[in-house]
Amino acid sequence: MGKQAIGVVGLAVMGRNLALNIESRGHAVSVFNRTREKTDELIAEFPDRKLVPTFTLEEFVNSLEKPRRILMMVKAGEGTDATIASLQPLLEKGDILIDGGNTHFTDTIRRNQELAKSGLHFIGTGVSGGEEGALKGPSIMPGGQREAYDLVAPILTEIAAKAPDGEPCVAYMGPDGAGHFVKMVHNGIEYGDMQLIAESYAVLKQVVGLSNQELGAVYTEWNKGELDSYLIEITSKIFDKKDDETGKDLVDIIMDRAAQKGTGKWTSQNALDLGAPLPLITEAVFARVLSSLKDQRVAASKVLEGPAAKPFSGDRAAFIEAVRRALYFSKVISYAQGFAQLRAASDEYKWDLDYGTIAKIFRAGCIIRARFLQKITDAYSKDKQIANLLLDPYFRDIAANYQGALRDVVIAATAAGVPVPAFSSAIAYFDGYRSARLPANLVQAQRDFFGAHTFERLDKPGSFHANWS
Amino acid sequence: MGKQAIGVVGLAVMGRNLALNIESRGHAVSVFNRTREKTDELIAEFPDRKLVPTFTLEEFVNSLEKPRRILMMVKAGEGTDATIASLQPLLEKGDILIDGGNTHFTDTIRRNQELAKSGLHFIGTGVSGGEEGALKGPSIMPGGQREAYDLVAPILTEIAAKAPDGEPCVAYMGPDGAGHFVKMVHNGIEYGDMQLIAESYAVLKQVVGLSNQELGAVYTEWNKGELDSYLIEITSKIFDKKDDETGKDLVDIIMDRAAQKGTGKWTSQNALDLGAPLPLITEAVFARVLSSLKDQRVAASKVLEGPAAKPFSGDRAAFIEAVRRALYFSKVISYAQGFAQLRAASDEYKWDLDYGTIAKIFRAGCIIRARFLQKITDAYSKDKQIANLLLDPYFRDIAANYQGALRDVVIAATAAGVPVPAFSSAIAYFDGYRSARLPANLVQAQRDFFGAHTFERLDKPGSFHANWS
Repeated sequence: MGKQAIGVVGLAVMGRNLALNIESRGHAVSVFNRTREKTDELIAEFPDRKLVPTFTLEEFVNSLEKPRRILMMVKAGEGTDATIASLQPLLEKGDILIDGGNTHFTDTIRRNQELAKSGLHFIGTGVSGGEEGALKGPSIMPGGQREAYDLVAPILTEIAAKAPDGEPCVAYMGPDGAGHFVKMVHNGIEYGDMQLIAESYAVLKQVVGLSNQELGAVYTEWNKGELDSYLIEITSKIFDKKDDETGKDLVDIIMDRAAQKGTGKWTSQNALDLGAPLPLITEAVFARVLSSLKDQRVAASKVLEGPAAKPFSGDRAAFIEAVRRALYFSKVISYAQGFAQLRAASDEYKWDLDYGTIAKIFRAGCIIRARFLQKITDAYSKDKQIANLLLDPYFRDIAANYQGALRDVVIAATAAGVPVPAFSSAIAYFDGYRSARLPANLVQAQRDFFGAHTFERLDKPGSFHANWS
Repeated sequence: MGKQAIGVVGLAVMGRNLALNIESRGHAVSVFNRTREKTDELIAEFPDRKLVPTFTLEEFVNSLEKPRRILMMVKAGEGTDATIASLQPLLEKGDILIDGGNTHFTDTIRRNQELAKSGLHFIGTGVSGGEEGALKGPSIMPGGQREAYDLVAPILTEIAAKAPDGEPCVAYMGPDGAGHFVKMVHNGIEYGDMQLIAESYAVLKQVVGLSNQELGAVYTEWNKGELDSYLIEITSKIFDKKDDETGKDLVDIIMDRAAQKGTGKWTSQNALDLGAPLPLITEAVFARVLSSLKDQRVAASKVLEGPAAKPFSGDRAAFIEAVRRALYFSKVISYAQGFAQLRAASDEYKWDLDYGTIAKIFRAGCIIRARFLQKITDAYSKDKQIANLLLDPYFRDIAANYQGALRDVVIAATAAGVPVPAFSSAIAYFDGYRSARLPANLVQAQRDFFGAHTFERLDKPGSFHANWS
């Protein structure tokens, strides 16, 4: 019996769908699961596919061509460490372990370095696109040894999503944790996108008074233009969906308590460590947390009053267009922050990330796929080292033409008592970033006053302390 | 020769000032420093004080009464671990190590547990008030074994700052890391306070056009009312200070690049871990980071335009009062977030924190000391378990009466292109917290659409998944 070019360990939904995806490109795939039921189920469900079941790790490892290519799709954290510990004694120098789980990049750095001591290659890869993406074509963000990536690149390229121009959504990100880092920032950006859309919904509903039907039509229309993206597309469909049971609009029945799996939090915590300003995504993370305090909010709503509700008296179409511009410009600002974080990380961890390529592989397969990403790729192809996307001519024009709309929407929402933490944070960041002078001189004066922390001067270099009292 | 009741290890400015403070209350103090120069200097400078120099750790330990009370004022992190490792073999069951450094609370939890195995007590204590506070009376936030605290309480009580009503600003915070945690949140709150004051400065200067002289007068006036606090007081003085060299106002010469030592960052990262919404302080941390990107900002200011500057045309006095109210209400919101984080931490780490006492010991000695803290103590004495300070009648009234001003200031700054990330975040949090319904239902619908993450319903309990396509 011949050996397989690749094997998958862990047959929960993501692992199983990736195995099926690989098989669909003409490769026989060895499969293994810690408990044999999942393996049996998979084989029973797809008896005609070239899936080779194995029931011990020895059998699994022996079923693979050398150097072995093993894709692990197991529970991130202890699950990954346990799987590696079981596999390691069975592997040989040059074999390649691929972690496709939702792993914190610092764990990937650690594992890559530890396994390298035994001559094993370790690739940590982001896989985005959920169950369906795994099956039909995800966006794939691998990091690790370059020579190991080259040995798995053909298969990853086959199974990856294809962008509108036909390019596969996979590329080598960089050494050790680079792939999982990029996936983390992708997820942080996803939090930002979703919060911005939620705020546009709140403003359109609460300030303008749009019905669900009108909202569905608005997002459908927006999806034809600059905002064309997977998240806007599904948003437009959400407003059309009826509840099977009650016949009401489902969106109105869904509890407003947003859950999270922690990757947005990781992104914010890392931005704080790097000293990379990421306020918008962080506001999005905190907005989910605040939403989860439903009982407190309901209690607070009875004692904390806001502005009296007023019927919308302006030009509806003009205001809806202002919200569209606010959303698009805020999205630009959010990506500018996220890509600046990637840059800070690349410097800090010595990854030499290629930002244009990152935007490129986000163009299909993943949750944040959007027409807009091509603009980011274009910006980096014009200037590979641009400090901030807002400085690129295209985005500069968006800033010039859309900032008025963003200001108007923040002002209207603030006056109406509709919370728009991400929109507000977007304009504050924009105004801060374009300020040659910020009031941080006062902060430095205070720090020197109470703690002798010293300050710099504008007129000459050095570190100074004043005798304040 | 008699033995001393307490010794201090580490004679940098904080250690040396605390030793002098303790000595000034009538106690002889053993002192030790890793390098003998600092010890010699201290003794040479204060030959008449009851400071007992020691030059080996053995000598130091032997000079102390049992159970030994050792205050470590060394560099947090490796310095603390190294000091503990050197001292531990010389100590006996029941001895008490006190870490007064700027330590992350998780390190304190770890050290407390490890030392407890050898029967040693470990107190991690926040010490706030800078050099001067250390010398004359800091605010002290000790955590660790209760029985160990009781043995050091008399001395800590003597050296602590005294509140206006005469109460000493020290109290037992809770087990293991509770003291350092409270200090961390204190520092996060300090970041928020400073950013809010900086934003009030930016608005008064850039929107209203106040001169430094006028600004000094405004803060002097504010310091007589609700905002009466150390930070407002020093702010008023900063605007009066001339540069010795140029004779110009010093504040205008100070570089607008705010530095930080990381405790604000810790506070935000912990809030993200706890799932406690802390957006205002986090915006303050990111504002410092953004300020530090001075070169980028100067470059961006040349290509990213904002709204045209307009002379202020409203009622100056009324707008200045609006800024004062915006500042006070934002400060209330910031403390509401910080104290909610304390509550989340108390639940998570099983500390049983006493929030009213915490506000009480912040009333003097520390950087955030303010008249306003009495209101927090009062709120918790009315309802020890209030979920959020905004629900207390006093703060509810502030919310009712001042929210209009905060909205007006955010609107004016947003229209004028003056960045006010903390003010904006404050009103967004307030409006979010008082919203019975947030647009997070859309976020949950999206998550269920693309990832089958399920949602809850408003009309019945359980977890549901819709067939979206």
